[in-house]
Amino acid sequence: MKTARLVESLPTSYIREILQAATAADCLSLAGGLPDPKYFPLDATAEALQLVADSPSVHGHLFQYASTRGYQPLIDHLQTQLSVGAGHELLMTNGSQQGIDLAVRTYLNQGDEVALEVPAYLGALQVFALAGVRVRPIPQLPNGPDLEALRKVFETGRCKMFYTVPDFHNPTGCCWSLEVRTEVARLCRKHGVLLLEDAPYRDIRFHGENLPLVSDFCSDVAIVLSSFSKTAMPGLRLGAVVAGKKLLAPMLRVKQAVDLHTNTLGQFLLAEFLVKGNYVAHIANLCRNYHAKYEALHAALELHTAEFGFHRPVQGGMFIWFVLHELDATLVAQRCLERGLAVVPGGVFFPAGEKHSINALRLNFSYLAISQLEEAAARLAAVLRELSACIAVGGRYSGVR
Amino acid sequence: MKTARLVESLPTSYIREILQAATAADCLSLAGGLPDPKYFPLDATAEALQLVADSPSVHGHLFQYASTRGYQPLIDHLQTQLSVGAGHELLMTNGSQQGIDLAVRTYLNQGDEVALEVPAYLGALQVFALAGVRVRPIPQLPNGPDLEALRKVFETGRCKMFYTVPDFHNPTGCCWSLEVRTEVARLCRKHGVLLLEDAPYRDIRFHGENLPLVSDFCSDVAIVLSSFSKTAMPGLRLGAVVAGKKLLAPMLRVKQAVDLHTNTLGQFLLAEFLVKGNYVAHIANLCRNYHAKYEALHAALELHTAEFGFHRPVQGGMFIWFVLHELDATLVAQRCLERGLAVVPGGVFFPAGEKHSINALRLNFSYLAISQLEEAAARLAAVLRELSACIAVGGRYSGVR
Repeated sequence: MKTARLVESLPTSYIREILQAATAADCLSLAGGLPDPKYFPLDATAEALQLVADSPSVHGHLFQYASTRGYQPLIDHLQTQLSVGAGHELLMTNGSQQGIDLAVRTYLNQGDEVALEVPAYLGALQVFALAGVRVRPIPQLPNGPDLEALRKVFETGRCKMFYTVPDFHNPTGCCWSLEVRTEVARLCRKHGVLLLEDAPYRDIRFHGENLPLVSDFCSDVAIVLSSFSKTAMPGLRLGAVVAGKKLLAPMLRVKQAVDLHTNTLGQFLLAEFLVKGNYVAHIANLCRNYHAKYEALHAALELHTAEFGFHRPVQGGMFIWFVLHELDATLVAQRCLERGLAVVPGGVFFPAGEKHSINALRLNFSYLAISQLEEAAARLAAVLRELSACIAVGGRYSGVR
Repeated sequence: MKTARLVESLPTSYIREILQAATAADCLSLAGGLPDPKYFPLDATAEALQLVADSPSVHGHLFQYASTRGYQPLIDHLQTQLSVGAGHELLMTNGSQQGIDLAVRTYLNQGDEVALEVPAYLGALQVFALAGVRVRPIPQLPNGPDLEALRKVFETGRCKMFYTVPDFHNPTGCCWSLEVRTEVARLCRKHGVLLLEDAPYRDIRFHGENLPLVSDFCSDVAIVLSSFSKTAMPGLRLGAVVAGKKLLAPMLRVKQAVDLHTNTLGQFLLAEFLVKGNYVAHIANLCRNYHAKYEALHAALELHTAEFGFHRPVQGGMFIWFVLHELDATLVAQRCLERGLAVVPGGVFFPAGEKHSINALRLNFSYLAISQLEEAAARLAAVLRELSACIAVGGRYSGVR
């Protein structure tokens, strides 16, 4: 049975494949984007579960069909927590990945153009491929997208959406400056381009000051995706879409057609945690710990791998983007796997067929323990030394593979 | 911001709108397709929740990112419970509604043709509209689809998929005969048409003998959708797709792009219930109670409304299809709402723009208590009498609206 044309073009998740290879007992993984389960709010969750277990019939509504928009007490709370503006509304989704898919299905036709920074979040590239939209890659600079390139793409009048992760970008960790934020917002409004602002890492900031959402400067043409996968627990599959009522209403209709509504028990657990737990303290603790992990990996890389590449410091999120001076990232990643270390080569973060000159590795620092991060950096260094020595004796990695 | 073309054509769920109107305190609703929460397996669920509440850290894996396919202990159990054949596999979805969407996105291009019986499940019509596929309506006869009409559509060579609900069809309650099942399977294989068999009501049989799935006769070209919304609890949003490995593999890739994976806690709760609970006894009890409700509504309709219409007895499911002799179903539904009764007029179960001569109401019997079902039938009878009297005195409902 032949699949739909767009499914043929769907990139497989190299990361998911690596993650499987990385399940070997002695393999250390810097490849995933997993939060550390040590910081899951399990106590608050256990208390909430206890409420249901103690009087299940009182909580029967958690198990019945429910509204497409989401569980009302959670929505009520998030209105405040996410500072949802006047005229704006919330829709709960099955993870913020579904938010990307819903926004694209609601607002883009096949063949439409979407701009996005490259390298880009692989899950978004999958959504765009599946929707048959054309991707306009915008190079990413240290403070955000190349504004000149963005302006040129917008000025063609063909670009309908700009997808971005302005806070601690996946995979690069880049955080946009305030100037870039206001300018991108201005450009989106000027050209009537829909801004799809994906903000899963926004609360995980351990350096510098919070900056406004890009959408704060262009809320009439913006859809914001929040996620609770990095700050609470990904297994609940909960994301929130915030947009103006008119923008959100058709997304709600699409969500209804796609899966009726999001699971309610998870929404109840999240609501209980957010309302009764101390979210501010939880996030502060999470950031403190991720900061320590980041510093550990950062320092270990400085110590062991500086001669082979470099990385820019990050102010939050989960990733370091390690740019190699010379060695081929794909080969490095492959050799690392053989040596018990999983990393993701940068090429997978580009649209299929898109030429690029980037030669980098994405390194996750949120999941492993500090001692493991240090060991991982040492393993990486050993591979880099080995491959480098091989070049030195002659043949373009000959004999290495 | 203009929505995508296909979203413009998306039918809104009249049923959801009715359901909202039906929330008035004194309104009785035969409109929804809700299971009775009295029969939710809350005890088993409470026990399972207690396990997690007692030792949340042991169950931390329930809250981490997980595999796209689903929670393995649940999948292992369902392999047996659903008699998954050799070479076939399972994929857990966010309700079986998502299974329809995934199958359509994976196998149909815009403009492709899909056959389905009319009247049809509204949620499927929404998926088809959103995917931009062309619907070929096949009239439904008492034992299943009109085979001659189906054959003609298949013989054009343009139909790629046949979507069906062979067990206790929504909205008609129709259950296909064995002969129709084998013949449809033969036709699908002969013409290489993908069978999408939607079986959410299959276990709710209170009369007659279980029949094989249609897919049992054509498993190489079939995708089966099972749901736990009618037999366990819809709020968990859990469905299962079963298909041959080759058919399922690309659906898994699409699911990954769409929302990564289905919520794990819900899958754990379902697995605990199915593995440790007595599912056979649970279903027997559910069927016994739904049978009593059906008989109550059936008898009350016979008693009060026989002069205005008729319905065919059903052997299971959740719906009675009440065909009106004369009165207009849409008008009846509207007047019923004003009189504190929600019912769904048959016209909403047809593809947009599709002409039809059916004049019927869908009446749900699973949700209300028996005394309420009897009161609902009395309210319906009063409306029918009132509208009928109005015709008798002259003007085509004049003065009624």
